[in-house]
Amino acid sequence: MTKVRALVLERQHELALRDIDLPLDVGPGMVKIAIHTVGVCGSDVHYYTHGKIGPFVVTAPMVLGHEAAGTVTEIGAGVTNLKVGDRVCMEPGIPDPNSRASRLGMYNVDPAVRFWATLPIHGVLTPEVVHPANYTFKLPDNVSFAEGAMVEPFAVGMQAATKARITPGDTAVVLGAGPIGTMVAIAALAGGCARVIVADLAQPKLDIAARYQGVIPVNIREKNIVEEVARLTEGWGADVVFECSGSPHARKTIMDLPRPGGAIVVVGLPVDPVAVDIAGASTKELRIENVFRYAHQYDRAIALFASGKVDLKPLISETFAFEDLDRCV
Amino acid sequence: MTKVRALVLERQHELALRDIDLPLDVGPGMVKIAIHTVGVCGSDVHYYTHGKIGPFVVTAPMVLGHEAAGTVTEIGAGVTNLKVGDRVCMEPGIPDPNSRASRLGMYNVDPAVRFWATLPIHGVLTPEVVHPANYTFKLPDNVSFAEGAMVEPFAVGMQAATKARITPGDTAVVLGAGPIGTMVAIAALAGGCARVIVADLAQPKLDIAARYQGVIPVNIREKNIVEEVARLTEGWGADVVFECSGSPHARKTIMDLPRPGGAIVVVGLPVDPVAVDIAGASTKELRIENVFRYAHQYDRAIALFASGKVDLKPLISETFAFEDLDRCV
Amino acid sequence: MTKVRALVLERQHELALRDIDLPLDVGPGMVKIAIHTVGVCGSDVHYYTHGKIGPFVVTAPMVLGHEAAGTVTEIGAGVTNLKVGDRVCMEPGIPDPNSRASRLGMYNVDPAVRFWATLPIHGVLTPEVVHPANYTFKLPDNVSFAEGAMVEPFAVGMQAATKARITPGDTAVVLGAGPIGTMVAIAALAGGCARVIVADLAQPKLDIAARYQGVIPVNIREKNIVEEVARLTEGWGADVVFECSGSPHARKTIMDLPRPGGAIVVVGLPVDPVAVDIAGASTKELRIENVFRYAHQYDRAIALFASGKVDLKPLISETFAFEDLDRCV
Amino acid sequence: MTKVRALVLERQHELALRDIDLPLDVGPGMVKIAIHTVGVCGSDVHYYTHGKIGPFVVTAPMVLGHEAAGTVTEIGAGVTNLKVGDRVCMEPGIPDPNSRASRLGMYNVDPAVRFWATLPIHGVLTPEVVHPANYTFKLPDNVSFAEGAMVEPFAVGMQAATKARITPGDTAVVLGAGPIGTMVAIAALAGGCARVIVADLAQPKLDIAARYQGVIPVNIREKNIVEEVARLTEGWGADVVFECSGSPHARKTIMDLPRPGGAIVVVGLPVDPVAVDIAGASTKELRIENVFRYAHQYDRAIALFASGKVDLKPLISETFAFEDLDRCV
Repeated sequence: MTKVRALVLERQHELALRDIDLPLDVGPGMVKIAIHTVGVCGSDVHYYTHGKIGPFVVTAPMVLGHEAAGTVTEIGAGVTNLKVGDRVCMEPGIPDPNSRASRLGMYNVDPAVRFWATLPIHGVLTPEVVHPANYTFKLPDNVSFAEGAMVEPFAVGMQAATKARITPGDTAVVLGAGPIGTMVAIAALAGGCARVIVADLAQPKLDIAARYQGVIPVNIREKNIVEEVARLTEGWGADVVFECSGSPHARKTIMDLPRPGGAIVVVGLPVDPVAVDIAGASTKELRIENVFRYAHQYDRAIALFASGKVDLKPLISETFAFEDLDRCV
Repeated sequence: MTKVRALVLERQHELALRDIDLPLDVGPGMVKIAIHTVGVCGSDVHYYTHGKIGPFVVTAPMVLGHEAAGTVTEIGAGVTNLKVGDRVCMEPGIPDPNSRASRLGMYNVDPAVRFWATLPIHGVLTPEVVHPANYTFKLPDNVSFAEGAMVEPFAVGMQAATKARITPGDTAVVLGAGPIGTMVAIAALAGGCARVIVADLAQPKLDIAARYQGVIPVNIREKNIVEEVARLTEGWGADVVFECSGSPHARKTIMDLPRPGGAIVVVGLPVDPVAVDIAGASTKELRIENVFRYAHQYDRAIALFASGKVDLKPLISETFAFEDLDRCV
Repeated sequence: MTKVRALVLERQHELALRDIDLPLDVGPGMVKIAIHTVGVCGSDVHYYTHGKIGPFVVTAPMVLGHEAAGTVTEIGAGVTNLKVGDRVCMEPGIPDPNSRASRLGMYNVDPAVRFWATLPIHGVLTPEVVHPANYTFKLPDNVSFAEGAMVEPFAVGMQAATKARITPGDTAVVLGAGPIGTMVAIAALAGGCARVIVADLAQPKLDIAARYQGVIPVNIREKNIVEEVARLTEGWGADVVFECSGSPHARKTIMDLPRPGGAIVVVGLPVDPVAVDIAGASTKELRIENVFRYAHQYDRAIALFASGKVDLKPLISETFAFEDLDRCV
Repeated sequence: MTKVRALVLERQHELALRDIDLPLDVGPGMVKIAIHTVGVCGSDVHYYTHGKIGPFVVTAPMVLGHEAAGTVTEIGAGVTNLKVGDRVCMEPGIPDPNSRASRLGMYNVDPAVRFWATLPIHGVLTPEVVHPANYTFKLPDNVSFAEGAMVEPFAVGMQAATKARITPGDTAVVLGAGPIGTMVAIAALAGGCARVIVADLAQPKLDIAARYQGVIPVNIREKNIVEEVARLTEGWGADVVFECSGSPHARKTIMDLPRPGGAIVVVGLPVDPVAVDIAGASTKELRIENVFRYAHQYDRAIALFASGKVDLKPLISETFAFEDLDRCV
């Protein structure tokens, strides 16, 4: 253990930028990274505000932050894919490669996966972190640290787009234009959709999403989303519907949006059970997929940034220096 | 139109064996079949008892019956796959081959599909029927008329097994050992499962299902199904869970049954929206499939009967002569 | 039959712009279209030069042309998706909706499908054509007739991209930068690939492909494609390889290009059997898909044009007036 | 290293039952197994006869044997799925859980996988072996050691049946009724096929395969396999064709066997490139899958043995005592 400075959530509503003991030994297969940029995610804010996220309760001081990019400063034994000086971003989950889920290729649903800023694992709002080389990804020269930090939320969008099994030229609907909904819309377009109908109540969020070619914003204060989807698809329905609002309200008519044989991908996560129109899902034989974080998406996300197909720079709102972190929440 | 004798549901609680006008012209691509055996399905009984099934209301007299086998007596122009004298069974749905859903290969989810004993289409508890040759299937010599009539409910099981995308050697759970649950269990075993854990409250139903090798019956009056599945799968969970009970109660713990990355196939159809544990589905990234009738299953079902892999004879309980039909309900 | 003017391939090497009898009755479900633009495909030229394409021999005079767009001038009974005046493009294949392959959703592999400019069916280098409304597609206002005519070759690319089952962010290789290879590369990018490595001997073809963002051209006169793919993928290999060259030479090293568990999609069609390195395919457990024309791609292709995700205008080289057609070959 | 007795292939044509140094330390995650039964595979005989299998040359003395079952005698640190005394069988491949292919769930196509009796890794015709607990599988009480040893070749059949993506009720063809062809036929039936047409020249092999319900043997000395498949499928073709003969001759007409949109699964491995009828594959849009050993099949295979769905006892021909091994080849 090494004593280092970090942004610590002491308990609900109480943040401190203070010293804490973190494990910084560089074992075999590991690399040490000097953190450059950390994105602040809704979940960080949620932890601060509520002291928990669903079943994950902050029962002890915890370093926040899990969307991070930086520079490799030390290499463990056996590491061949990285070298000192490489600009990188890191997956916040640390899989056990020997678990049953990992061996089947789905480490994200391993019940024992260890995830940054999810106790007992600390986050990375701290100057240095040691991480498995296999889950540390080199950034191409044309991808900035800020974009590197955004690979994490974009990977959720990629996982959703992958689960959707998009057929090229599909029409999708995204319910909810928050940060994750926007990431999903961008990933769905990059992943083969011809157009993505994004629905939300908040016009400013829709305006941001509408900057991306192929996005059709629908303000559901003004328009009925079921009617709009029917109109835009000549009554057939959307090929894929991404539920990113987490709102029980959005679910009331969700079965009216997909086409017969279409798919719903659930990304937004309501805590309580939600009333679902099973009969509506049945008569269309809908396929419903669920997304939990992501697996094997970082290299794919970075490839899309590098080739210019995906540009997330319009989404970056504000940046803070590390020293100012305790004042930013 | 031709006046023929048929078992008519006049309205809720009122059956009559009487003459009615039915269309019996043999157009191009059609065949006429002398009905030999008709299975009585839960939906027939449900129509009699309730006068409706969900949105399908009996607003006019309707001939019941949709699980039928018989003998070809006349051939329309252009029919090449059948000849007079062939023993056959018939799919009760009559697709429009030019609809969008049909052209995509999923005629069962065409909103305009016409289905026997679903108004305005009459059923086949009548001596003769005219049907499209493409949806009339020759029975091999070793498949009886009674088995031919059972292709219909078994096709629902086949559709469920197909949607499940079983990997050979899978472990499945079937919730509900009614007629459809039993069909699903048999189809899942024929379709590649090593074993199927069948859960129900009613021991007699479980005893019938347990006649099939590979079925593990669990009486949920005596045992906790979540614990049993965990025990039988060493804590990992089932690869596929088929929901065939239609019971909101069964759904309370359904997300605890599948393994991470597993699937739930919904066959039983509750009329009202049901509270679903989205968070439970999410953390395991479950795939949820919905089944509505079947498409392209008749030839496959008959092939399984013919090769001896599936034997439904243990499920035949009682048979009635046509003349006795109005006394049997 | 109606006598109309058309570009007729009388026999190998002999074209005539002359009157010929064509069926122009507008039956139920059909529409009549005034042809505006017809693309000239390599197969048209191949028919002219060789008098046949593989097994398809020109044994009688045949109207050429199968990439067409125009304006609806008459509507048959029962047509609801189109009206007179609609700008449209047409699929050149006319499926039998009642065939077994069509009912399964794959009308393109129906051995009995009728295809324009493939005897006994004439092509559409003629002022008018009658076609099934289901295979006639309305062009949005922002898609030109010339683009409408290009939907046909692009649909081949779409079929290839669909068969590939691209995962968002994939790296693909396209062998052969001819018209079809270029269409495949564009469809693969639109369909989710982050980058497409296009290999050819001809620099001008590579220069055209390289106008599309995400294309990495490789001139195989100068560079070894196996080494280039290894370098660009850090030794892992490409997720998908599209064989569009039809060249037996390209196949010699094709198994060295995909990653373990990757896919090869065969689009180019050599006439003679080709020596294939089965052992190379085996140790990587490659999936090999074959493409024959397309099914259900027109609406998806048009959606990609309409949303601006795909722009084929850079590929249009020359246009000719109908009257000049006999001079253009 | 420990000096132990083993059946050593000294070089081509020279076997010795002699002492050799083998690694028998039980590290973390490992178990030690007392070998009870080892199957003799065609590859063992091939090594003896030819001194090599394709690229794998016996350049140094090597212990043979890779189809093994035995009893756990020692447990390494951290092992929880096994205990001393458990009857088990073992996967002969030892994956690196941190390799890229393994992390994606396909350890069998990891170029660096270490496999028993494939230099530099020794086989298990020796009294004891140390193996990773994750690739050691407990045998249920009703599965014998001999059956446990047969899990290995059956797992190849399971991998083929899995890659085929069988739809319940499919008709398959297996070309070649050797040991692997027979395993594939049994796995295909267990995995959902209604019937499997098995083709071979050797009647005794066909007679063994025909003991399994659903197998239709075709002696290709007497009958034309293309005609037989057409007859049995009414001209449509088989859903899946498994190539298990490795014979270039069998490939000449292989494209005539599947239905439009069907699949070919290549299991038999010819050393030299083979002429393939690409045009035949194209017009049917066939999917061609390749099989290399297996991944994640052992637990599924054992489940099928345990439930009684698969019984391989009819296939066991002869057994030898360990002391007699050098006389048996």
